[in-house]
Amino acid sequence: MTNAAVVNFRFRHTMLPVKDLDRSVDFYTRLLGMSLVRERRSSPTPTAYVAYGPEDTHPALELISGTGNSEKPWHGHIAISVLDLKTLCGKLEKAGVPFRRSLQAGGSTSSNAFYANVFDPDGFEIELCQPRED
Amino acid sequence: MTNAAVVNFRFRHTMLPVKDLDRSVDFYTRLLGMSLVRERRSSPTPTAYVAYGPEDTHPALELISGTGNSEKPWHGHIAISVLDLKTLCGKLEKAGVPFRRSLQAGGSTSSNAFYANVFDPDGFEIELCQPRED
Repeated sequence: MTNAAVVNFRFRHTMLPVKDLDRSVDFYTRLLGMSLVRERRSSPTPTAYVAYGPEDTHPALELISGTGNSEKPWHGHIAISVLDLKTLCGKLEKAGVPFRRSLQAGGSTSSNAFYANVFDPDGFEIELCQPRED
Repeated sequence: MTNAAVVNFRFRHTMLPVKDLDRSVDFYTRLLGMSLVRERRSSPTPTAYVAYGPEDTHPALELISGTGNSEKPWHGHIAISVLDLKTLCGKLEKAGVPFRRSLQAGGSTSSNAFYANVFDPDGFEIELCQPRED
């Protein structure tokens, strides 16, 4: 295992499209010991993050309601944080990895400086995000 | 956030059913910086775990081939480690949570002492596992 890999990447969340956000937050907090660590209730797709520790250090579940995708098949994704997304995207493009969303800046209210979304070999979506520098 | 929650639970892996195990391991290790941390190649459903650190401390992707489920819809799951699974299962049963697999002991070669599988409110499968005491 290279030290660089451990330092530069970490899992950020697994996204699940849910039907009833309150019901899902209740399930994961009351029954499975998670805490609500962040939420965006005013969004058209109200979203909550539940985890076993602070989102900056612990992987979370990203629960998103109102997407119309709460029934299976799954429309979730895996998110991975990386410190230099531009370099990574160049590497992925060169390798022929399909992009759903090319590299773009996060909005002013976003917790991330840059985003991109790619597909893995089976078509599972992976969100890549580069945290803002503090 | 209660300290108990942080101590007792952690995310273990997100499972993805894949078509070609070598292709997927190559993708996650060569392009996304993960390391191969464990594998079961001789299984009828050959499996590999890729992660950004040791599986005991870092969340992994569990890549399983040969399941017949590599096409969408998703047949993956989320796994959560817990220190006292018997108590948790009692709590979940009392709350009416549906079980796909009730509490059972892991085999002699398993890294976990006990397992159970439940469904969250949207039918997403959650594997619960209690590590062996060393």
